[in-house]
Amino acid sequence: MENINSIYSDNTMKKLADLRREFHRCPETGWLEFETTVKIISYLKSFGYEVIYGKKIHSERMGLPDESTMREHREQLKLEADFDLSEILEGYTGAVAILDTRRDGPTIAMRFDIDGNEIDEAKAENHLPNKENFASLNKNMMHACGHDGHIAIGISVARKIAERKEQLRGRFIFIFQPAEEGVKGAKSIVGTGILKEVDYFLSGHIGFGAEEGEIVCGAVGFLATSKLDIYFDGKPAHAGASPESGRNALLAAASCALNLHTLPQFGGGMSRLNVGVLKAGDARNIVPHKAEMQIETRGENEEINALLLTRVQDVVEGSAKSFGVKYKIVPVGDAPSYDKLDRDFVERLAKNLKIEGYKVTIGKAFGASEDVTYLMNEVEKNGGKSVYFMFGAKLAAPHHHNRFDFDENVLKAAYDVYMQSIDALIKFSFSIDMNRHKTL
Amino acid sequence: MENINSIYSDNTMKKLADLRREFHRCPETGWLEFETTVKIISYLKSFGYEVIYGKKIHSERMGLPDESTMREHREQLKLEADFDLSEILEGYTGAVAILDTRRDGPTIAMRFDIDGNEIDEAKAENHLPNKENFASLNKNMMHACGHDGHIAIGISVARKIAERKEQLRGRFIFIFQPAEEGVKGAKSIVGTGILKEVDYFLSGHIGFGAEEGEIVCGAVGFLATSKLDIYFDGKPAHAGASPESGRNALLAAASCALNLHTLPQFGGGMSRLNVGVLKAGDARNIVPHKAEMQIETRGENEEINALLLTRVQDVVEGSAKSFGVKYKIVPVGDAPSYDKLDRDFVERLAKNLKIEGYKVTIGKAFGASEDVTYLMNEVEKNGGKSVYFMFGAKLAAPHHHNRFDFDENVLKAAYDVYMQSIDALIKFSFSIDMNRHKTL
Amino acid sequence: MENINSIYSDNTMKKLADLRREFHRCPETGWLEFETTVKIISYLKSFGYEVIYGKKIHSERMGLPDESTMREHREQLKLEADFDLSEILEGYTGAVAILDTRRDGPTIAMRFDIDGNEIDEAKAENHLPNKENFASLNKNMMHACGHDGHIAIGISVARKIAERKEQLRGRFIFIFQPAEEGVKGAKSIVGTGILKEVDYFLSGHIGFGAEEGEIVCGAVGFLATSKLDIYFDGKPAHAGASPESGRNALLAAASCALNLHTLPQFGGGMSRLNVGVLKAGDARNIVPHKAEMQIETRGENEEINALLLTRVQDVVEGSAKSFGVKYKIVPVGDAPSYDKLDRDFVERLAKNLKIEGYKVTIGKAFGASEDVTYLMNEVEKNGGKSVYFMFGAKLAAPHHHNRFDFDENVLKAAYDVYMQSIDALIKFSFSIDMNRHKTL
Amino acid sequence: MENINSIYSDNTMKKLADLRREFHRCPETGWLEFETTVKIISYLKSFGYEVIYGKKIHSERMGLPDESTMREHREQLKLEADFDLSEILEGYTGAVAILDTRRDGPTIAMRFDIDGNEIDEAKAENHLPNKENFASLNKNMMHACGHDGHIAIGISVARKIAERKEQLRGRFIFIFQPAEEGVKGAKSIVGTGILKEVDYFLSGHIGFGAEEGEIVCGAVGFLATSKLDIYFDGKPAHAGASPESGRNALLAAASCALNLHTLPQFGGGMSRLNVGVLKAGDARNIVPHKAEMQIETRGENEEINALLLTRVQDVVEGSAKSFGVKYKIVPVGDAPSYDKLDRDFVERLAKNLKIEGYKVTIGKAFGASEDVTYLMNEVEKNGGKSVYFMFGAKLAAPHHHNRFDFDENVLKAAYDVYMQSIDALIKFSFSIDMNRHKTL
Repeated sequence: MENINSIYSDNTMKKLADLRREFHRCPETGWLEFETTVKIISYLKSFGYEVIYGKKIHSERMGLPDESTMREHREQLKLEADFDLSEILEGYTGAVAILDTRRDGPTIAMRFDIDGNEIDEAKAENHLPNKENFASLNKNMMHACGHDGHIAIGISVARKIAERKEQLRGRFIFIFQPAEEGVKGAKSIVGTGILKEVDYFLSGHIGFGAEEGEIVCGAVGFLATSKLDIYFDGKPAHAGASPESGRNALLAAASCALNLHTLPQFGGGMSRLNVGVLKAGDARNIVPHKAEMQIETRGENEEINALLLTRVQDVVEGSAKSFGVKYKIVPVGDAPSYDKLDRDFVERLAKNLKIEGYKVTIGKAFGASEDVTYLMNEVEKNGGKSVYFMFGAKLAAPHHHNRFDFDENVLKAAYDVYMQSIDALIKFSFSIDMNRHKTL
Repeated sequence: MENINSIYSDNTMKKLADLRREFHRCPETGWLEFETTVKIISYLKSFGYEVIYGKKIHSERMGLPDESTMREHREQLKLEADFDLSEILEGYTGAVAILDTRRDGPTIAMRFDIDGNEIDEAKAENHLPNKENFASLNKNMMHACGHDGHIAIGISVARKIAERKEQLRGRFIFIFQPAEEGVKGAKSIVGTGILKEVDYFLSGHIGFGAEEGEIVCGAVGFLATSKLDIYFDGKPAHAGASPESGRNALLAAASCALNLHTLPQFGGGMSRLNVGVLKAGDARNIVPHKAEMQIETRGENEEINALLLTRVQDVVEGSAKSFGVKYKIVPVGDAPSYDKLDRDFVERLAKNLKIEGYKVTIGKAFGASEDVTYLMNEVEKNGGKSVYFMFGAKLAAPHHHNRFDFDENVLKAAYDVYMQSIDALIKFSFSIDMNRHKTL
Repeated sequence: MENINSIYSDNTMKKLADLRREFHRCPETGWLEFETTVKIISYLKSFGYEVIYGKKIHSERMGLPDESTMREHREQLKLEADFDLSEILEGYTGAVAILDTRRDGPTIAMRFDIDGNEIDEAKAENHLPNKENFASLNKNMMHACGHDGHIAIGISVARKIAERKEQLRGRFIFIFQPAEEGVKGAKSIVGTGILKEVDYFLSGHIGFGAEEGEIVCGAVGFLATSKLDIYFDGKPAHAGASPESGRNALLAAASCALNLHTLPQFGGGMSRLNVGVLKAGDARNIVPHKAEMQIETRGENEEINALLLTRVQDVVEGSAKSFGVKYKIVPVGDAPSYDKLDRDFVERLAKNLKIEGYKVTIGKAFGASEDVTYLMNEVEKNGGKSVYFMFGAKLAAPHHHNRFDFDENVLKAAYDVYMQSIDALIKFSFSIDMNRHKTL
Repeated sequence: MENINSIYSDNTMKKLADLRREFHRCPETGWLEFETTVKIISYLKSFGYEVIYGKKIHSERMGLPDESTMREHREQLKLEADFDLSEILEGYTGAVAILDTRRDGPTIAMRFDIDGNEIDEAKAENHLPNKENFASLNKNMMHACGHDGHIAIGISVARKIAERKEQLRGRFIFIFQPAEEGVKGAKSIVGTGILKEVDYFLSGHIGFGAEEGEIVCGAVGFLATSKLDIYFDGKPAHAGASPESGRNALLAAASCALNLHTLPQFGGGMSRLNVGVLKAGDARNIVPHKAEMQIETRGENEEINALLLTRVQDVVEGSAKSFGVKYKIVPVGDAPSYDKLDRDFVERLAKNLKIEGYKVTIGKAFGASEDVTYLMNEVEKNGGKSVYFMFGAKLAAPHHHNRFDFDENVLKAAYDVYMQSIDALIKFSFSIDMNRHKTL
C-alpha cells in the first residue's frame, strides 16, 4: 500500500480553499442546511459514492426550527437536483456517503459537521470574506465556527479516497452531520444504527483547543450537556385594576431562573447551569402571562448531568406551581460526556503524525460540549476505537464572533491528518487484526 | 325598671381595679389560661351563675401549644377548686356563665377575652405594676393588651347582673374567651352553638382605636385574617463534600418567603401578607434540612383573604417541589372580616351613652383583626344584633409593649357602658319586640 | 347669548364621523404623530386660529422613541405644508390653538389626546374599519383607544367656536396633546405654562368608565403612576468554561423583578407595581450580560407612588450591586393622581346636561391613570376649575384590542357635551364673576 | 543517636489512654479551652518546658464567643494554678512549649488542636465514655472530633522528648492550638511569627481520611474556606397597619441566601457556598427587622475562594440596599488551601514508617478544610517542610456525632509515627544539611 501522504499535490490547497469559500457563502443553521446538503450530495455522487440522505439517516431530531422558519428559508432558495429533495427540505438534512472497497479491511467512519451559526456576518471591509468576496449571502446566518472548513475537508478526503479506491482496503463512511450547534443533530444520526459496525472513527475541529500549528490527537474532557427550552403560560390581567385575576408567568420564570442557578454544586465533579435567555411579557401594564427561557446544563459525567436534569425538572414544575401557571420543558439538544483516552491507540496515530512533522499533543481537554460524543460512545460501545483531533489555526476573531475567520492553511493540515490517519489505521488494523466487521 | 346607671357606688371603682390587678399578676397565654379560668369560674359560681367550661364550650381549637409547654405550665401551678379541673388543664380554657331571669326579655351575650401575651413584663421601677406590686408573676407572660381589664369588667358586670336579677328580664350569657391573641379561640367557642339564640351581643376593647375619654360605639373595619405555620423538611448533607445529596429546606423557605410577598395586590380591596418569622438550618457546613415560617394574611373582605390563602398554598407547595422538600401548612388562627354598621341600632345605644355624658363616636374602623368577628357574624347570621365598643384610655406604652399599662379609670367607664347598654337593650327589645327567642 | 346647542345641524354627525375616519386611517404612536399634527394644524389654521406648535408647546418630553424609529417613520411619510415642519418631525408633536374673543369672559381650555397605539389593526373582514375602508394604513399602529374620535371632536368644537366667535366671550384654548398612551405627553405641555391663566378646563374620554348612553361628569379616582424602563448591563462569558468571569444581568433582573413585586403593601391606600416586560440574554451558552425591564407603579395618592418609587430605586440599585452589573432607570412616563370633586361646580354642569336629556353620573372613579391629571392639577393650582367627562359608547372590543371600534354616535354626544358646557361656563362665569384672568 | 522507636514501653499505651480520657471529660469549645489550657501548661511545665501562653501566642482571634458566654463558662470552673490565668480566661487559650537542646539540629514544630465541639454527648449506656465513666462533664460540649486524643499524643510526645533531651539535637516546638473547629484559631497563632524559623512541621488527625490501620503520610487537597456571619438590621412595623414603614430584614436575608447560592460556578476548579443557618423575625404580625445568617465558602484554591468572597460581599451589600436595611459581615474563621506534595521528602518519611510495619499511603486528599494549612503554608514560605498525617482508626460513629468515639489503639500508632518521624527528620536534616536555622 502506498503512502497516502504523497498523493496530494500543490493543487490540493487551492481546491480546499475554494470549497471552503463556496460553503462559506451559503451558511445555513441547524436543520435548515438545504442548499448545503444538496451541494454535498452532488459532490459525493460525482465521486461515485453511494449517498444516503433524508429520513434514512435520521431517527429523532431535536431542536427543529418551527414550520414557518423552515418554509421561509425554503422559499428563498432555488435548488435544483436530479435527486429527490423533498425530505431534505423538511429538515432531514445532512448526508452519509459509503464506499466499500470490497477488500478485507477496517470500517473507517469520519464525521464532518455542516451547520452555520445564527449570526449576521460582519460588514467590515477588512473582514477577509468581504475583501475576497465570499461572505455569507444569507441574512443572520454565518459560518462562524469553521464548519465550512470541515465540509471542505470532508469532501476533499472523500474525493481522494474515491480516487484511490483501488489501492485501499475496507469500508469508508463519511458522515456530513447537520445541527451540531446546540448539540441537536448527532443523536438523530446515531439512532439509525449507521455506526454499529465501525472499527475506527475520526472527527475533529478547526481552531479550537489547540495553538496555531498544533494538532491535538485524542481530545478528551467533553462535558455532558443538555439544552432545554422552557415555557410558562399564565393568564393576563390589567395590572392596575385586577392584578389578582392574572397568573404571572414572568415571576414564575424569574423565580425559576434564580432557583435553577442554585443547583450546580456536586461533590462528584464539575457541573454547570446557565439560563442564557429569558423573555417574558408584552406590555408594561398587563400581568405578564407568557415567559420562555433557554437553558443548558453540563456535567463532568453523565450521572451529574442526569441528576442535574431531574433537579431542573423539579424547579421548573415548582416555579409553575408557585405562580399557578402551566409549563413545558422542551429538550432541544444534548450530548453525552466523553473523557476516555486509549493511550496506545492514540499514541500510535500521533507517532505517525509526528513523523510527518506535526507538533502533536495527546489527550488535551476539549473543555466544552460537542455532540460528536454520541458518535464516539456509539462506536466504542460496539468495540470500535475513536479519535478526535483539534487543528490549531490562526483566527481573526473567536468562534461564534461575527468576524470569525481562520487561516486556510489549517485546511491542508487537517486534510493531511485525516489521510495520514486513514493510512495508519489500515496498517494498524492488519497488524492487530482489529477488522472485526468484515466487508465481504 | 330602675336606671342601672345609678346602682354602682364609689366602691365599684376600687373593686374593678383590685380585680384587674389580681388578674394582671397571673397572665397566661392562649390555651394556658389555667389559673385565670379557675379564678373566673370561682367568681361566677359565687355569684350564683350556671357556669359551663371545659370541652363543653369548645369545638375546634387552633394554635394549641405543644404538650410539653402545657405540662410545664401546669406543673408550676398549684390550683385547687371544688370542681373538676382536668379538661381545663388540657387547654379547654375559658368559661361561659348563664343567667336566666325566667322573665320575658332578650338574650344578651357579652364576650371578654382573657389571655395574656408572650412578653416578659418590664422590670423598670417606674412601671406602675412594679411600683404598686401587681406585676406578672409568670416568666415571659404578661397582660400587655388589657385583657386583665376585660376580665375585671366582665366579672363586675356579671356580679351586678346577678345582684339585680330580680329587676331584670331575659337571659344573660357571659363568655370569657381564651386565646384571642393570634385569633385562635373564638372559632372554637362559636362552633359549639352557644350563640345561636342571642338577640344582642356586646364586646369591646380597652385603649384601642379610641382617644382618651372617647367611647367608640359600633367599631367596623375588622380585617379577615389567617395565621399559618409553615414547615419544610429536606435532607441534610455535608455542604463541602456532597452538597447534591442534600435537599435544601432553607432555600425552599427563602424562595417561598419572597414569592409569598409578591401576592398581595388585589383589585377588590386591601390585602396583606407578612412572613414574620423564618428559621432554618442548624450548622454552617450542613445543607440545611429544616425550615419553618410564621406567616399571616389579611384581606378587606373574606373573598380576598380566601383567594390569598389559595395562592399561599400554591407558593408553599411550589417552593417545596422546587427544592425537593416536604412541606406542612398548619393553620394556627383565623378570623373573618366585619364591616357592617346597623346605624339605627348603634345610634340608639350611642344616644343613651351621650345622655350619660360620654364622648361617643360611631362606626370607627378597628383597622386590625380580632376574632370577636366570629361571634358577631354568628349572632347576626341568626338574626341578632351586635356592637363592639372601643374604650379610650391613657396608656403608658403601646399595646404589646413590655411597659404597657392603662389608666384604670377606663374600667369604670367600660363597666358603665356595658350596664347602660344592657339597660337600653332591654328597653329597646320591648319597644320593637325583638326578643325573638323567648325565655319561657 | 344664543343657546349654542341649537347651532349644530344634522350635518354635524356626518362631519364628525368623516373626520374620525380620516384620522383613524393614519394612527401614529406617541411622539410620532407627524401626519396627525400636520393635519390638525391645517384644519385649525383654516378656521382662523392662532396655532402654536413645535418646541414652543413642549418642555420635557418623556419616553421618546429612539432616533432610528423616528427616522424610519419620517421617511415613509410624504408631508407637505405651508408651515415649517422641522420641529414636528423631530417629535415635537401636537398643537395648541388659541382664540381670543377680546370680550370679557373666562378662559376655557380643552384637551384632546391624539396618539394611537402600537397595535396591528385586525384584518378581519367584519371589523368595521375594514368593511368601510378606513382601517389603519400604518403597520403596527392603530387608533385602538378612541383618540381618533377625540381629535374629530376637538376639531369640530374648534370649528364651531370659530364660526360663532362674534357671539362668544372670553378666550378659548384647544390643546391637541401627543403621547397620552404611557402617560408621556402631558407633563411636557404643562411645563410650558400654557395653562397658567385658565379658568375652566374640560377633557374627556370615549367609551371608558361609562355605560352606553351614560355621560360621566366629573371623573375622579385617577391613580398616580410612573412608568420606568430599567436596564442592567453586565459582562458576557462562556457559561461552561469561565462562568465566574461573567456578570449576570439576567439574574440581576430576575431578582429585581421578584423583589420589586414585594413592595406594594401600603397602609395609606392602594398601591400597585407591575414588571410587565423582562428580556435578558442572547444565547443559551453565554452568561447573559444584558437585561431590560418595563415596569410601572401606581398609588392611590402621590405620596404612596413617590415612596414606592424610592423603594424601586433601592431594589434596582441593590439588584445591580448584588450581581456586579450596571443599571439605568429611565422614566418614560408619569401622571399624578386626581381625586377631587368640586361638587357644586360639577353639579351645575351636570344639571345643564340633564336638561338636554343626557343620563348623567357625577363623580365616578376613572380607576386607571391618564396624564390629563397633570393639566387638571395645574389649572386648579392656579385657581381654575376642571372637569373630566366619560362618554359611554357601544364598543366592538375593549380598548387596546386590535378589533377596538366604537359606535360613532358617541361623537355627536361628546361634541354636544363640550358645546353645552362651554355655554354653561360662560354663563356661570358671569354669574359668579369667576373670570379672574381678563382678556382685554 | 539511638533509635527513638525503642524507647516507649508497654506502659505508654495506658498513659496515652488515661490522658485522652482526662481531656475527654472536660471538652471546651473554641476560645473557651480554659481548663484544657491550664492542664496542658501544667503538664508541659512539669516536664521542664519553657511554656508560652496568653496574649504572647495570639495575634488576631476570629470567631470569639461573646463576653457573656465567656463569663458563664469561666464562672462554672474552679481553676487553680501557680501561674497567671487572667489572659487565658479572656480567651487567649492554647499553649506553646519550646525545648532547645542547644545542640546543632533542625527546628521541628508539631501542632495539636485542643478544642471540643458544641455537641451534647450521647447519654446512651453503650456509648463507651458513659460505660467507662469518662464522658463529658460540660453541657453542650463534647470531644467529638478526636482532639482529646491529639492532646494526649502531644503531651506524651513532649514528655518523651523532654526525657530524651540529652540524646537529641536541634529545637522542638509544641503548639497546642485552640479553636480549630470553624477554622478560627490557627491564623492567630501564625500571626505571632512563632513558625518563622521552623525546618520541619508535623501535624495530623485521628480517624479521618484513612482506613482503619492505615497511616496517610502527606495529606493534600485541603480546601480554602471562609466562615462568615452576616447580619441584617431593618425597621419593625405593624404588618397590617403600616407595612410600608418597616424595612424587611427577613426578605433581605431570603433574597441574599438565594442569590449567594447562584455564585459557585468557577472555571478554575471546585467552589462551594452554603448558607447553613438563617434566622429572621420575632413575631408573625411584625415586619421582621432582624436577620442573621451563618455561611461558608470553599474553593479548590485561594483565588477561587477569594473571588467568591468578593462576590459574597456584593450580594450581601446589594441585598441590604434592595430592602433598605443595614448589614454587617463578620468573618469568624478561615483557612487557606493546601495542595502540595514534596514527594521526595514525604516518601523518605513514609519509607521509615513502612519499615516499622505501618500500612502507609502517600498524598491522599483531605477533602475538607483544616486551619493547619495556615501553619503549613507559613513553614513552607520560610523554607521549611511540612507533613500532615491521617491516622486511620475504628470509629463508633462519624466525627461530630454525639456518639463519636475511637479505638484508643490509634493513640499509640500516632505517638509512634511522631516519634519515628522526629528520629528520621533529625537524621535527614544532617544528611542534607537542612538545619538552616542554627540553635547556638
